[in-house]
Amino acid sequence: MTTPSPANNDVRMRGFTHRSTVQDTVAWIDQHSSSLPTVDLPVSQVAGRVLGQEIVSRVNVPGFARSMMDGYAIRAQDSSGATPYNPLSLDVLGEILPGQAPTMSLELGTAVRIMTGAPIPEGADSVIPAEQVQAGETEDQVQLLAEVSPGKHVGQPGEDITKGELVLPANRRLRPQDVGLLSSIGVEKVPVIATPRVRIVVTGDELLPAGSLPEGYRVTDANSPMLSALVRRDGGEPLFDGIIADQPEAIAAALGEPADLVLVSGGSSVGLEDHAPQILAELGELSIHGVAIRPSSPTGMGLIDSRPVFLLPGNPVSCLCAYDFFAGRAIRQQAGLPADFPYPIRRLALSRKLVSIIGRVDYARVAIQGEMVEPLAISGASILSSTTRADGFVVIDQESEGMPAGAEVDVFLYQQ
Amino acid sequence: MTTPSPANNDVRMRGFTHRSTVQDTVAWIDQHSSSLPTVDLPVSQVAGRVLGQEIVSRVNVPGFARSMMDGYAIRAQDSSGATPYNPLSLDVLGEILPGQAPTMSLELGTAVRIMTGAPIPEGADSVIPAEQVQAGETEDQVQLLAEVSPGKHVGQPGEDITKGELVLPANRRLRPQDVGLLSSIGVEKVPVIATPRVRIVVTGDELLPAGSLPEGYRVTDANSPMLSALVRRDGGEPLFDGIIADQPEAIAAALGEPADLVLVSGGSSVGLEDHAPQILAELGELSIHGVAIRPSSPTGMGLIDSRPVFLLPGNPVSCLCAYDFFAGRAIRQQAGLPADFPYPIRRLALSRKLVSIIGRVDYARVAIQGEMVEPLAISGASILSSTTRADGFVVIDQESEGMPAGAEVDVFLYQQ
Repeated sequence: MTTPSPANNDVRMRGFTHRSTVQDTVAWIDQHSSSLPTVDLPVSQVAGRVLGQEIVSRVNVPGFARSMMDGYAIRAQDSSGATPYNPLSLDVLGEILPGQAPTMSLELGTAVRIMTGAPIPEGADSVIPAEQVQAGETEDQVQLLAEVSPGKHVGQPGEDITKGELVLPANRRLRPQDVGLLSSIGVEKVPVIATPRVRIVVTGDELLPAGSLPEGYRVTDANSPMLSALVRRDGGEPLFDGIIADQPEAIAAALGEPADLVLVSGGSSVGLEDHAPQILAELGELSIHGVAIRPSSPTGMGLIDSRPVFLLPGNPVSCLCAYDFFAGRAIRQQAGLPADFPYPIRRLALSRKLVSIIGRVDYARVAIQGEMVEPLAISGASILSSTTRADGFVVIDQESEGMPAGAEVDVFLYQQ
Repeated sequence: MTTPSPANNDVRMRGFTHRSTVQDTVAWIDQHSSSLPTVDLPVSQVAGRVLGQEIVSRVNVPGFARSMMDGYAIRAQDSSGATPYNPLSLDVLGEILPGQAPTMSLELGTAVRIMTGAPIPEGADSVIPAEQVQAGETEDQVQLLAEVSPGKHVGQPGEDITKGELVLPANRRLRPQDVGLLSSIGVEKVPVIATPRVRIVVTGDELLPAGSLPEGYRVTDANSPMLSALVRRDGGEPLFDGIIADQPEAIAAALGEPADLVLVSGGSSVGLEDHAPQILAELGELSIHGVAIRPSSPTGMGLIDSRPVFLLPGNPVSCLCAYDFFAGRAIRQQAGLPADFPYPIRRLALSRKLVSIIGRVDYARVAIQGEMVEPLAISGASILSSTTRADGFVVIDQESEGMPAGAEVDVFLYQQ
C-alpha cells in the first residue's frame, strides 16, 4: 500500500470533465460501423446469416412440367363428360416416377400413370387424381370418373421461380425457407456478411474466472460470459482469452490482437486503476469518454486504426447497458443486422411514476405485471439481479424528468 | 417401367381413408413430448439454453461491504457540516484497491482512499466521492466539501443476491445477463435441458443433394437445409447423413439410427413410392396418417419405442407447414421451450377476403402492406417462393369458411 497523493493533484480521480450525449455517441458509432465483407458459405450453414448481395435464379423451378398429384396424365378432352355414372375408359401406356424421363407420348384415348413430382409426358396436358378414377376392364385400362380441365394438377415450368428472377434481396436475414429456396435453385455457396470477430478484454485484479465461487474480497467475472452471449446474439463471434491483469502492457497487448471490434470491460472510468482510456488514446484515438446515460456513464470508445474499441464499465449492469446502447449497435451493423435494439417492444402503461433527471438518458429496468409496467426499485447500478428480475427496460429521454403513473411507455422486452 | 395394376386394386394409390383433426394431432404430440433430461454445461456455453432446475445462490453478492464510488471511506459523522466554504480535514491512513484486504481500521478523524468495488475498511460506514473532496494541507490529509449520510455509496453484503435465494426458476430460457448472474454466484456448471438430437431422413430418388444445380427431371433437395435450420432454431441438433434411396431397407435403417426424434421428408403420402408409413407401422406404431390441414395433409407420425417419428411431405411448403404445426412442436417441448409457434404475432386487418373450407385448417401465407394483410395468391403447395415472399402466415380454423376483407387476423411473422 502506497501513500496516496492528494485527490485533486491526481487527474485520474478528478471525475469526467465532459459527457457526450447519447445522440452524439450513437452518431459516432453509426459513422464508424459498416457491414463486413461477404464470405461464401455452404447453403447448409447460412440460416440466420445476412445475405451480402442479391440472389438471382439461374434456373426455372420447376424446370419442367410436373404432376402435382398421384394419378394419371391425360389429355383433358378425353375426360369430357366423365362422371361416376358415365366412366370413360383410357388405355394406360405405362407409368412415370419422379426423376424419370418419360419414354412415351400420349395419343387421344390414352393415359399414363404418374406420381407427384414426375414429369408430364409429351401429349398430356393435365392430371386426373387417383381418387377420381377406378379400375378398368382390363389391367391396361383405367376409367375416369370426373372431368378435368387442361393444365389441371400440372405444375408449369418456372411457376415457382423464373430464371433471371430476383429471389432474395441483399441484406436479407436468411430464414429456414430461404435456405431451402437457395438450395433448390442450385446455390451451393451463399455470399453472406462475414461474422464480426469481437475480442473481449476483461480486466480487474479483483476478478476470479467465470463460474468460480467468490471468496474473500474477490468477485467472480460476470461480464465475459454475458458479453460473449450478447455478441453471439448480435451475430458476432466472441474471442475471450481469460482475464487480463490491470497492467497497461497487458491491456495494450490485448488491444492489438486480431479482431474486427474490441470490447474492454473494466478499467474504463477515471479511477486509479483505470488504464484503458489512456492506452486507447496512446494506441489510437479516444473519441468519446463519458456519456450522459445512467448507468454506464463511464463508457468510452475510439479507434485503433479503423477498428472500433469500446470501453465498457466493469459493473455488470452498466456493462449490459453500455453494450446494448453502444457496442452492440456497432456489432450488429458489422454483421449486417439492423442497428436498433434486438428486443421486441410492448407499449404499456406505468403503474407508478418513473423519475429521471434532465440532461441524461436513463435505462430503467421494469417488470410487467398484468398489463402494467412496474419500475423496479434499484439502489445501485451494480445490481445484476435487477436485470434478471426485470422483463425489460424503458428508455427515458435526456429531455425528460420522467413519466407519471398511467403514462404509456415502450418496454423493450429482454429475451434470450 | 412395369405395367401398372389398376388403380383401385392398389391400396397405395387409394388416397387417405381418414384424416385426423389438427386438434387431435396436437394432443397426440403433446402426449408424447416431454423435456429431455438435464446436462451440466459450463456457464460460458449456456446462453439461450433452458434451465433444467431452479438455481439457489450459495453466496451473498456482494460478499462483503464494498465501495460503490472512487473516493474516501470515512465515518459519516466526520462529514457533518462540511461544505465548500467549510472544508473539514481528515488524516488519510492509506488506500484500498478492489480485491485487496483492508489492513487498517478507521478512527474518528481519519479516512482511507478507496476505489469502486474495494472492501470498506473496519470503522468506516460511508464513502465520500472523489468529486466532493479537495487536497489537504499535507499529503496525508484530505478535505471534505460535503456531508454524507451513514451507508452512503456502500454496497451492503447480499444487496444484489442473498445466500439461499432462488435466483432463477426452472425452465427459464437463459438470457445473457442470466449467464452473467450464474457466473457471479459461482455456478460453474449449469444444469440445462439436453439438446434434442433430431435425425433428418430425406428420401426421393429424384432428388439431387442440396445446392446442386437442378438438371433434367431431377430436383434439388430443399428440405434438408430448411429442416436443419428449423431444428436449430427450435433448440435441436440436426443430424443429416445425405439423401436416402427410396428403398424400404434404407429407410428402415435410417429410422433405427440414434436420435431423440426423427423427421422423414418425402415418401409420406399414399403413392407408389411412399414407403415410410408402412415402415413406421412395421417398426413401431403409425399413430396418425393424414391430417385435416392444407397444405401438408399427407403428414404422418408415430413412435418407434418411445421415440417420436414424423413423416413430413416432400413438397417443401407442405414440409414447412407440417414442421411448424407438428414436428417443431415436439422438438420445442423436448428442448424445454414453449410448444407454440416461435413467431411474433401482429394483429392486422385483411385487405381482401381469405377463403377456406370447413373441415380443415388452412396455413395461408400473407404479405403485410402498410397496416393491411394481403393474402398471397398461391396455386400450389409446392411454391416455396410463397414462403419467402410472405411476411408470415395466418391460420384459418377448421370451423371457418374464411374471413371477409377488413376482418382482423393474427399474423404469425416469419423471422430468422
